[in-house]
Amino acid sequence: MSTLFEEFQNYLNKMNQYDHVITLLYWDMKTCTPKLGQKGHVEALTHFSSEAFAMSTSEKLGEMLAALTEPTEFGQLTDTWQFIVKRMKRDFDRNKRIPSELYKTYVQTQAEAGNVWTEAKEASDFSLFSPYLQKMIELTREIAGYTDPEKEVYDALLDQYEEGMDSATIDMLFEDLKKELIPFVKEILAKQRPENPAFQEYFDPDAQRKVQAMLLDYIGFRKDAGSIGETEHPFTLNFSSRDVRVTNHYYEHAPLSSIFSAIHEGGHGIFEQNINPEYDNTRAGGCCYMGLHESQSRFYENILGRNKNFWLPIYDRLGELLPPFQKISPDDFYREINHVQNSFIRVNADEVTYCFHIILRYEMEKAIFRENIPVHELPALWNRKMQEYLQLTPSNDAEGILQDMHWSDGSFGYFPSYLLGSIYDGMLLDALREELGDVDTLLRNGKIKEITKWLNKKIHWYGSTRKPKEVIAAVCGKEVSAEPLIRYFKEKYSEIYNI
Amino acid sequence: MSTLFEEFQNYLNKMNQYDHVITLLYWDMKTCTPKLGQKGHVEALTHFSSEAFAMSTSEKLGEMLAALTEPTEFGQLTDTWQFIVKRMKRDFDRNKRIPSELYKTYVQTQAEAGNVWTEAKEASDFSLFSPYLQKMIELTREIAGYTDPEKEVYDALLDQYEEGMDSATIDMLFEDLKKELIPFVKEILAKQRPENPAFQEYFDPDAQRKVQAMLLDYIGFRKDAGSIGETEHPFTLNFSSRDVRVTNHYYEHAPLSSIFSAIHEGGHGIFEQNINPEYDNTRAGGCCYMGLHESQSRFYENILGRNKNFWLPIYDRLGELLPPFQKISPDDFYREINHVQNSFIRVNADEVTYCFHIILRYEMEKAIFRENIPVHELPALWNRKMQEYLQLTPSNDAEGILQDMHWSDGSFGYFPSYLLGSIYDGMLLDALREELGDVDTLLRNGKIKEITKWLNKKIHWYGSTRKPKEVIAAVCGKEVSAEPLIRYFKEKYSEIYNI
Repeated sequence: MSTLFEEFQNYLNKMNQYDHVITLLYWDMKTCTPKLGQKGHVEALTHFSSEAFAMSTSEKLGEMLAALTEPTEFGQLTDTWQFIVKRMKRDFDRNKRIPSELYKTYVQTQAEAGNVWTEAKEASDFSLFSPYLQKMIELTREIAGYTDPEKEVYDALLDQYEEGMDSATIDMLFEDLKKELIPFVKEILAKQRPENPAFQEYFDPDAQRKVQAMLLDYIGFRKDAGSIGETEHPFTLNFSSRDVRVTNHYYEHAPLSSIFSAIHEGGHGIFEQNINPEYDNTRAGGCCYMGLHESQSRFYENILGRNKNFWLPIYDRLGELLPPFQKISPDDFYREINHVQNSFIRVNADEVTYCFHIILRYEMEKAIFRENIPVHELPALWNRKMQEYLQLTPSNDAEGILQDMHWSDGSFGYFPSYLLGSIYDGMLLDALREELGDVDTLLRNGKIKEITKWLNKKIHWYGSTRKPKEVIAAVCGKEVSAEPLIRYFKEKYSEIYNI
Repeated sequence: MSTLFEEFQNYLNKMNQYDHVITLLYWDMKTCTPKLGQKGHVEALTHFSSEAFAMSTSEKLGEMLAALTEPTEFGQLTDTWQFIVKRMKRDFDRNKRIPSELYKTYVQTQAEAGNVWTEAKEASDFSLFSPYLQKMIELTREIAGYTDPEKEVYDALLDQYEEGMDSATIDMLFEDLKKELIPFVKEILAKQRPENPAFQEYFDPDAQRKVQAMLLDYIGFRKDAGSIGETEHPFTLNFSSRDVRVTNHYYEHAPLSSIFSAIHEGGHGIFEQNINPEYDNTRAGGCCYMGLHESQSRFYENILGRNKNFWLPIYDRLGELLPPFQKISPDDFYREINHVQNSFIRVNADEVTYCFHIILRYEMEKAIFRENIPVHELPALWNRKMQEYLQLTPSNDAEGILQDMHWSDGSFGYFPSYLLGSIYDGMLLDALREELGDVDTLLRNGKIKEITKWLNKKIHWYGSTRKPKEVIAAVCGKEVSAEPLIRYFKEKYSEIYNI
């Protein structure tokens, strides 16, 4: 090991300690910190974030990365460390090009926009949020000009969340989905049944917590490397592959919410727990591709969790833990968890109409960054698209354009990841069937952990070292295509809805 | 504000950020961290602890403290800051005298001794722990020689946990207790009744959690400045007066354990929540006197919580939350929570025989530090004293000398704090009666929060700025005496046991 590499390791180790407590402060603020204690945590977060930022943009780090990428030093590194150093060098060079004043303004505007979005959503008044959205768009555009001067802005943004993905590919995928799903959903809705009122009874939150623990254990989320918290909105975070945290929220009259959040976040968590531990606390560890990450949470939640056979081995156990389910047959349960319905809110949508929610947002973002649609025209555009794809018109901004926080956060280009995740899932399901045989049979026999092991080996292990398109190529031997997802929808829902 | 003072504030602020995340790492390790994640947290803890230690012993800090205690600078400080600076200067000077190699050895031995104690307790074999106890005694003695060269060793240790307290005073207090309580407990035991088996039924842990929340709210622990965790052993910690955390442990067949831990830790928590917030994150904030702290937790747990009138306003609510209590009358409940019994384990002892557990440990510590009793003779001494005070002989080391972790930790001189707390409580009860009238009436009328307010105003508000003896003098107008505690025991238990 060269002296330089040793020095670099020490530097990284210190940066990791900062990142560690930043993650912990965030976790604690969401799960444990009392109202009046938030301020103390924010002060600590501010302190350590600015220390971490200073370290990640220091001259010192720049010099070490430059020296490590010189052929003689670089040649001595293992493959993994070559990957890590290259990644860090690229991040460093990109971030270094952002003028520090611009970055400061961005961070500050982001914080303000977040607060204003919360107020605007509560007041259901887009006009409050509009000037901040305008600023966030301008700043995002300006920063992308520095970080990715060679790329078209929106492609640069997409690439940040799903590296190697571009709008030409996404256009093609989403057009295929639209063409097939718009008429198919109409067929489904023609055969619609009312929602089952049995699911609106009282379901004890303490018992829901036990169901969550049971489900996580069942799908293979490891308790010795994971824990569970409670938050307003469920999420997953990780310190390393050895410490992965998922959260949930329990509604007394909506048990399916915590059940499917448990499986969804469990999918994210299983991904993080099964990355090569040698990558821990480096740029190779964790999964930094949002679409690929989402493909795993959605695979568990939808492909597996909304399959009737998933539930057969554990349905009695579910009824023991949550007695109201004893009065619901597995068939009725299966129907309810696959109830297709046009609705306003993305996060509550079923797996089929969910596609339209994402396509809408993707088209909105293209309109913003490609067609420069003025911000004040966005609500009308949103509502037109809602009508087009979901035959609904929001009665107010809160259930329309203000429902998601992503844009206030500057996360333009993030939304497509969700649907890319589902598109990958269709392909992964095909590959899984080919290698492990019939998925229904595996699930019916309670062998879901064999599926988990397959995903571990094929996808999770590689962490961030393989880009999404590379993963799909390696696992499926094909280019990304929406056809398998469309086929999955049609087969499944034709049977459920007798089409 | 002088430039020096400003610089000092910035320095303190940075130290506080380190302390903040050290506290948080500790909290998370005990409440949330999965088994495999402990290592990552320990690494972060090690990093930030050594940074914090470096800052607290730096030349820089020494220079600032020296300059700030010069008359011109010192005169410009507020009373509070004069207190803080004096305290910090004293701590700094004491710690600076410890040779850094010695301190390192101490910290390392402490960690080893802790691990060996755990193993030795599991194996119930004192001989495993013995050499480490020997080392901890020697190191503790050596360090006290540096920090408090003018004091006798054991007095120096006592002073660390309960400043201003010495063994001459404690001898007198404990002798009074022994003289009165030994014969009194014999009278009680002559009238002993069997334990009530109704308390060994199944009590749902989820319902116990709800009882905990109800009790904390009832006694005045504020939810907006506090939260609750679950740990093997209950404890309280605080980031500031605005963020105080208590924990508990729920046993399915021992509901009184979580109930009285809730009230006990709630008492610690109420103390911390009600300290003048101007003292937050300074040497004036928090309460650094263990006996005084314990007086508050034990006041709530024993003086209030084991009074029948405490339960009358909430007994129906208790039964609603934990239905097995519906079959137990308030009278039977009252008897059970005041069941006096000689027993082996300190933490399970009733409030009366608890005194003997502490007196025994105090006498052991004096034998160690004053009479230099060889370590291998300690188990026999322990067992002789158990027989003398509790008429029991432990059948093994685990239920004898190995039961507490304090000595493995180097916390010699800590044990007396627990009983000093109870002694203060007797006096505080007298003062409270004098000022607010009959406590039984207040409790029966559900006015416990008036008592909390009184304690807030008389004790809590001052944090660490008043030493225990000063607090007792200010509140009770008297020297510390065991007479009120003895009187409280005699009145209460003569009635219960019909003596």
